[in-house]
Amino acid sequence: MPEGAAPLLALFSDFGASGPYVGQVLAAWAGLAPAAPRVDLFSAAPPFDVEAGAHLLFAYTRRLPPGSVVEAVVDPGVGGPRGVLAVLADGLWFCGPDNGLLAVAAGRARGCRVWRVDWRPQSLSATFHGRDLFAPVAAHLALHGAPPAPAEEISPAAMERGGVADPAERVILADPYGNLVTGIPAAGAAETARLAIAGRLLPRARRFGEVNPGEAFWYENADGLAEAAVNRGSAAALLGVSVGAAARLIRD
Amino acid sequence: MPEGAAPLLALFSDFGASGPYVGQVLAAWAGLAPAAPRVDLFSAAPPFDVEAGAHLLFAYTRRLPPGSVVEAVVDPGVGGPRGVLAVLADGLWFCGPDNGLLAVAAGRARGCRVWRVDWRPQSLSATFHGRDLFAPVAAHLALHGAPPAPAEEISPAAMERGGVADPAERVILADPYGNLVTGIPAAGAAETARLAIAGRLLPRARRFGEVNPGEAFWYENADGLAEAAVNRGSAAALLGVSVGAAARLIRD
Amino acid sequence: MPEGAAPLLALFSDFGASGPYVGQVLAAWAGLAPAAPRVDLFSAAPPFDVEAGAHLLFAYTRRLPPGSVVEAVVDPGVGGPRGVLAVLADGLWFCGPDNGLLAVAAGRARGCRVWRVDWRPQSLSATFHGRDLFAPVAAHLALHGAPPAPAEEISPAAMERGGVADPAERVILADPYGNLVTGIPAAGAAETARLAIAGRLLPRARRFGEVNPGEAFWYENADGLAEAAVNRGSAAALLGVSVGAAARLIRD
Repeated sequence: MPEGAAPLLALFSDFGASGPYVGQVLAAWAGLAPAAPRVDLFSAAPPFDVEAGAHLLFAYTRRLPPGSVVEAVVDPGVGGPRGVLAVLADGLWFCGPDNGLLAVAAGRARGCRVWRVDWRPQSLSATFHGRDLFAPVAAHLALHGAPPAPAEEISPAAMERGGVADPAERVILADPYGNLVTGIPAAGAAETARLAIAGRLLPRARRFGEVNPGEAFWYENADGLAEAAVNRGSAAALLGVSVGAAARLIRD
Repeated sequence: MPEGAAPLLALFSDFGASGPYVGQVLAAWAGLAPAAPRVDLFSAAPPFDVEAGAHLLFAYTRRLPPGSVVEAVVDPGVGGPRGVLAVLADGLWFCGPDNGLLAVAAGRARGCRVWRVDWRPQSLSATFHGRDLFAPVAAHLALHGAPPAPAEEISPAAMERGGVADPAERVILADPYGNLVTGIPAAGAAETARLAIAGRLLPRARRFGEVNPGEAFWYENADGLAEAAVNRGSAAALLGVSVGAAARLIRD
Repeated sequence: MPEGAAPLLALFSDFGASGPYVGQVLAAWAGLAPAAPRVDLFSAAPPFDVEAGAHLLFAYTRRLPPGSVVEAVVDPGVGGPRGVLAVLADGLWFCGPDNGLLAVAAGRARGCRVWRVDWRPQSLSATFHGRDLFAPVAAHLALHGAPPAPAEEISPAAMERGGVADPAERVILADPYGNLVTGIPAAGAAETARLAIAGRLLPRARRFGEVNPGEAFWYENADGLAEAAVNRGSAAALLGVSVGAAARLIRD
């Protein structure tokens, strides 16, 4: 980032774009770290789906400005005994619940350090840690480049995996166009590779205009994942499947 | 707020998160008060529902940074004779229509001053006062700490109530998870208190993980309101009700 | 804009308000031009509908602060041979695909200059030019007041029209209230003018409160377009039509 600029604070969550939770996190940041730019990176991750969130989180943070701080919240165990993590992975900070959500970002990093954060705010609701706990941890990371004390560095191997598979051979997001994003990295797949999904074998294309309107195909999306799509149409509607549907990449 | 920082400008409205209105208000602020941080706090309040808006507005502004300025717009009478208010309540500024929307925030404040704002912009559409009238009033409050002239301080008792009840014994929001927020403050309710809603009596829990997946309960949400929820599910779907449904808290 | 302030960066797109694309564009800007204010102006334009986008883009940029830079993306031909434009129209910068999307903003401007931008980033996905190509072009315009090299000034007449009609005698947006925005400028229409839509002839009103709840009418919206609406109701639901439905303004 340019010298002197504050790191970007980015929110990733399953809060829902239309709900009242995103705005409260951004407002909390404005109070805690007013000089840091803020962005709702993505808050329509599939609700309660930690595995989908883990892969989407990795995908959507590949191009963030170096030094950015990402608050990640898909947290069905909020208020329970699950821990709180701060992870420094390839120059990006992540903070979130210790439930597998950070497992892909940490697991794929060339360099990764992990802290268990035991700091807690004076006032903590049982159900909105995104605002009350993770937001101040993220703001602290942006301001100080380290987690708030008390925090203890732990081995990345000690993180919870939460059953998160990598790759995730299924649909992890239906985007607003009806495109079906899978948790399968597409790098290295042949031009003839096919995506098995919804009982069909989709051919590969590089871009939407290569196939006829209404036709289904798969492509390597802008974040490196295999994605089923329909030119000027909805793959979710055409194929009749959505988040959770099995998908497999037949690579050659 | 930190010395020298401009106050946060926060939007609360029923404009709809996906509509073209939120962006235009934020863009207007960027032109009028470029140094002030801006946030869409919440813009999916139930359309035209002043009572629901009044309670949600209070709830979602409890944790704003001191000195923040909130533009609040649920305004079915836009373009008609209803007045324009600026309210200073417990260190937060609110501006919006004089139709009851600010009644809960003002009525519950320990200290409250109210101005009727007679200032009007040179160019004023009949239907988008959020951009053309309230946005410049809010920017003026952020820049100058006082409403634009002409404005006259009035008694809080002279504000329109618009039929807004407090508490509001009904559902005032179905959030993106399907949780049902009521307009009933939960403070002081016993651990054995039950929420009567949709013909059922829901038991209390402190957090989602305390009940089985698919089970309905109520809890005091992070903003102090009684809320019906289902662990890893949708209370709106399970109970078959939404905004407007009657709810009553049986406190002991 | 105030002296020394950076121009506003505004996004207009069909990315969908709940999708993962808006946040990535805003995050890219935060890295490239951290001092420039950023706003998602509107990202729920009808998918793939260049004509609707062209009219909505014009409408929603009329009040932007002078000098603002607008990234406009409705781009079904992404990754194909379509060109990239930077347009300076009446003091606003626009960048986007050369497919007709900028045709209304350019065509109605009192003064207009157009550049074909041949600059390309080192790393360019085939499908997300909003983040990888248009975002850095927009950031460059905000920082330098000129398109990145290589770029060649061309005649406005050389822009693609893409079949975009002006006016567009049809519905170009159903907003979150169910209001039906047409691509027909309403300036100069008589008080007795009627809007022909869905087999009905709607009378004119100036504001919602002038008609009974549940009653349909048309009005000149805050952006100058003819719009069908229902007081405290949804015109889309009442009339049973949506984006694409024919509409005609009978002006006297």
